[in-house]
Formats: sequence, C-alpha cells, structure tokens
Amino acid sequence: MDVTVAIDCMGGDRGVPVTVPAVLHAMRRDPGISFILVGRRDRVEQELSRLGARPGPRLRVQNASEIVGMDEAPAVALRSKKDSSIRVAANLVGQGDAAACVSAGNTGALMAISRFVLKTLPGIDRPAIATILPTLKGHTHILDLGANVDCTPEHLLQFGIMCSELVISVERKERPTVGLLNVGVEDIKGNDVVKRAAELMRASGLNFYGYVEGDDIYKGATDVVVCDGFVGNVVLKASEGLAQMLATYLREEFRHSLYNRLAGLMALPVINAFKHRVDHRRYNGASLLGLRGIVIKSHGSADAYAFEFAIQRAAEEARTGVLAHITERMAAIHKSAA
Amino acid sequence: MDVTVAIDCMGGDRGVPVTVPAVLHAMRRDPGISFILVGRRDRVEQELSRLGARPGPRLRVQNASEIVGMDEAPAVALRSKKDSSIRVAANLVGQGDAAACVSAGNTGALMAISRFVLKTLPGIDRPAIATILPTLKGHTHILDLGANVDCTPEHLLQFGIMCSELVISVERKERPTVGLLNVGVEDIKGNDVVKRAAELMRASGLNFYGYVEGDDIYKGATDVVVCDGFVGNVVLKASEGLAQMLATYLREEFRHSLYNRLAGLMALPVINAFKHRVDHRRYNGASLLGLRGIVIKSHGSADAYAFEFAIQRAAEEARTGVLAHITERMAAIHKSAA
Repeated sequence: MDVTVAIDCMGGDRGVPVTVPAVLHAMRRDPGISFILVGRRDRVEQELSRLGARPGPRLRVQNASEIVGMDEAPAVALRSKKDSSIRVAANLVGQGDAAACVSAGNTGALMAISRFVLKTLPGIDRPAIATILPTLKGHTHILDLGANVDCTPEHLLQFGIMCSELVISVERKERPTVGLLNVGVEDIKGNDVVKRAAELMRASGLNFYGYVEGDDIYKGATDVVVCDGFVGNVVLKASEGLAQMLATYLREEFRHSLYNRLAGLMALPVINAFKHRVDHRRYNGASLLGLRGIVIKSHGSADAYAFEFAIQRAAEEARTGVLAHITERMAAIHKSAA
Repeated sequence: MDVTVAIDCMGGDRGVPVTVPAVLHAMRRDPGISFILVGRRDRVEQELSRLGARPGPRLRVQNASEIVGMDEAPAVALRSKKDSSIRVAANLVGQGDAAACVSAGNTGALMAISRFVLKTLPGIDRPAIATILPTLKGHTHILDLGANVDCTPEHLLQFGIMCSELVISVERKERPTVGLLNVGVEDIKGNDVVKRAAELMRASGLNFYGYVEGDDIYKGATDVVVCDGFVGNVVLKASEGLAQMLATYLREEFRHSLYNRLAGLMALPVINAFKHRVDHRRYNGASLLGLRGIVIKSHGSADAYAFEFAIQRAAEEARTGVLAHITERMAAIHKSAA
C-alpha cells in the first residue's frame, strides 16, 4: 500500500544530515513510501543536492521557516512558532496530505503540537508514548514513556487498549497479552491507582496477563507493558544508562592488556553480532498513540540508520489502520459499559 | 571495633546451606565480628558440624522455632509468628544483644517486623530500603526500593537525609551529593510530589544536586539517588532483567559456531574480569534505613559469596554509628525549622 510520510527534517541533535540521508535510503528500500520533507527549504535542498538527489513526485519539499529548540518549553513552541517544522509536519497529517509524520525533535513540543493539531481519538483522554524494547523472547511494547507523569486508572486502561490494538494491527497478533507494571505480582501489591487499573483491565476484554515486575519487561513476559509516564521514562533511561555502562566496562576490559586486545580482536565478529542483536537503533521510533493521526518520535541522537527505523515504523502504522482499530475498540468498550 | 551481628539463618531461597557457610567465612576474614545464628537449632548445628565448626563465644546459636515463608503476608508473619527467625533476630538488635541483623528472608515481613520491634528513629516517618549500584564512576546509593509505594515530599526528603548520613558514616565522604529522580532535569518537569521534594531538599542543608534522570543513576551523577519505592523497585528489577538478558545474548553468541566458541575460550579471562566488575553479588545487602537498629536485607537468591557482602555491610554500619548521625541530623533540621 502506498503511503505518504511527512518528515520533520530539522529535528534531532543533528537535523538534515541525519534525516535526509535516512529518507533517501528508505525511499530506495520501500518503493511504496512517498515523502514530504519539511524544514527550511534551502537547507533541505542543499542536503539533497549534496547527496545527488532532487525533489520529485515521491520527494516533495515543504518549507517551514522555524525550528523548535530541543530544550524549548512545549507551550512556548506551540504558541509562538506557527511555522515550525514540527507544526507544518503535523498539519500535513491533519489535512490528510500525509498519513504519518516522523520527528526527532523536542518530545514535549511534538506531543503538545500534535495534540493541538490532530486532537485525540474518541474515548482517549490522553495520548501516550509507546516504544519497543528487546526481550529474551523477542520484543515487547511499553507505554507511557513520559507524556503523562500522573495517571488515573482509566488512563492506564486506555494505554493498554491502544497499545494492544497497535500490536494487533502492526504485528498481526490476535490477542496480545497486556501486563501492568507493579512492585510485585500479588494482588495486594502496589498503589491504589495500579490496583484499580488492574480491575478495569480485567473487566475490559483485554487479554490482561496481570501484574508484571521490572524484570518481566526484559524476560518478555507480555506483549505490552503498561505504566505511567514517570515510571516508564525512568525505566527506559535507566536501561539506556545501564547498557552504556556495561558496554564501556566491556570495552575497557578488552583494552586492558595485549592479551586482552588480541582476544578482543578474535572476539570481534562475536561482539559485533551481539551488538547488532541489542542495537537500540533497531528499536528507534516511539509511537504517539491516541491521536487522530500517526506521529512517530525518533530519538534525538538517532543517526541515519536509526532514523530509518522510525520511518519504517511510521509507514507500517499508516498501512495497517491502527487508528481505526483503536477507535472501534474504544467504541465497543463504551457501548458495553453503557 | 568489635561488633555482634545476628543472622537469620533460615531466610532466603536456600537458608542454612547459604547463610552458615557465609558466616564462617566472614568470621575468619574479620576477627572483630561475633555472630548469633538464629534459626532452628538442630538445623543450624547440623550445618555447623557438616562444615567442621561448632558454637563458641564468637558463634552462638539462638533457637527460633518458626520460619516466615518467602511469600507470606507480612501482617500475618508479624501477628502470628512470634518465634520466627526474623523476629528473634530483630529482638536481639532491639535488646542490644546484637548491633545489627542480616536476613535474606521475605522483604515485607522483615520490614514490618523490624519496624514493630525496633520502631523508627526520631523525625523519621517511614523507613526506606537503600542499596548500592555500580556506576561508571564507581557506585551510587539508591532508595527507596519498595518499602513505600506512595511517598510525600517529606518522606523523600527524609530518605535523602538518611542515605546522605549513611554515605558520610560508612564511606567517610564529607558532603555526598543527593539527586532526586525525575523525568527531566528542568524545573518544570515531574509531578507535584517531586517538585515539592526538590524545594524541601534545596532548603534542607543537604548537598542537593538537583534532578537526575534514569541514565544518571549508572553514570554515577550523584552519591545518592532518591525516589519513591514504586519507581525504585521497578528500576532495580528492570536493571536485573536487562543485565540477565544481555548476559544470555552474549553467552548465546559465543556458542554460535566453532569459531565463536574458540574466540569465547580466548576471551574467557576478559569476560570473567568483566563479570567480576559488574557482579551484583558484590553489591548484595540493602539497608533498612530509619529504624532504631541496623537491619540488612540480603537478596533472597544470594549464594554464600553474596550473603557475606551483606554481613560485611551490617558490620560496617554497626561500626560507624550511622544511626546516631541520622538522629543528630534530623534533630538539627527540626531545630532550624522550628
């Protein structure tokens, strides 16, 4: 299925030198994606020509005169930068000119602007950010990752439903399991919000697995892990920090002596296979779920290789009608509750 | 300084075959520790004799007829098992017969019983569980790890003060830095509890570093990281899960082919040095801070090597007068606030 994806070319730590090459590579790999490159026209076209490419029917450029800074307050970006690359990309989705947009820009601003431009789906109070993490069994989806630091039980239920529908749509799993992150698996564990959310999930028709603990995320106990945005954000960043620490330690040990260097040289293909397997770049691309449009957030520090995974994710979601699925499921739940 | 440590010999997944050998090894290594082995006398003495040891002035046995199950409800254990090994060990601390106790048993029961027997220090509303984690710079302390799933700003402040005094006492750091775990480092980030806790910490005389994010834990940004018990528990368990997943993947890659096995054989000393460096057993022993007595929780799955680190930790805390330091600091803060 042919889809059009709008790209915020200016977002992220490096902007066009990352986003534009990723687009060109994705365009060659997947002939079914057309792109609208959003950003300062001169900068985008300069990068295209540097790479020997030029605009065409599958590669349009849409000018946006402003850029939202990575540390800019979302409310300010929303109010004062009406022609930012994020805003213009979201508008393209809102107007139906693009089926999805991708940005590596300021997460808070991307969420605030997307929410303002696209609005939430019927029955959804708050959009959430979902990402994929590798597990012992393959991978899992976790949300929210920081959009909502305070959540009600109803919000957590909605997160579970949205992400469950995402997995059904994109991965064609029939009844993905949904776990609720808690400090123990017994019924008495946790705070009131989590306990009440578990009751709601149990009654919702979700394939509710029950409580999961922190280690269950990476064990791959469930297809979906639901938590509030505070916990999800801290877990995700702590995981990044731990992985980086372990990588640094391993590198240091392999440099420790001549023997170690030699062993490291021999082990290089093995280490590289390992690195490929856990390469977080392959999991790049978080979904802003619950909006009337598909918005994918790339990591700000993504390189072109990683950014392309976020583009692929956008195309996949656009092709599978995940928004219609969420809407239908929410309507069915409201009907059965009424 | 000579100290007496009471050991719950029955706690943990394996009980005496782990705890008793660890005690004997610690006794040989550190002639300044005397032990009271708490548990079913027949079981403990049988294990001692199996290991060619017998009770003596530095190695007394105190009978306790009951055992708290690892999954038993804390309230039930507290109410109905008055002669459990946890209860008897805590009593020994309460009566001044031991300066500290160590248990690998049920965490909730250990906390409930310790709190009932020992009470909290003046000015401390709730005890918290603190542990040490390795970082890029060495190690850090993090609390709470699950004793308190809901915290007020005042609780978080008290956690910061207690753990700061722990670091001052045990590690002789003059002004340990204290970070407050949040979803971003800007002032506007986080929920109301965290924002208010930051204000309290800033005004408290603590060496408050400000907000830290999940990755800052393993970067070693601060000496102490404060969070509520829900977040701390999930982060700790997710870290365990991630480390296990990475170890499994690495092992699998090194078994993938004959070449990989050979490379693995050559890299074995390097991998072992790496494993030693991040060996979680060396960080075993979480402090139940805020009680009128020193209580150390060992991981339930600890082996004798790991359990001995928990014993060492108990002896260190007993020798450095951390409880007096916390009490003094709390009194000083109350006085300056009055």
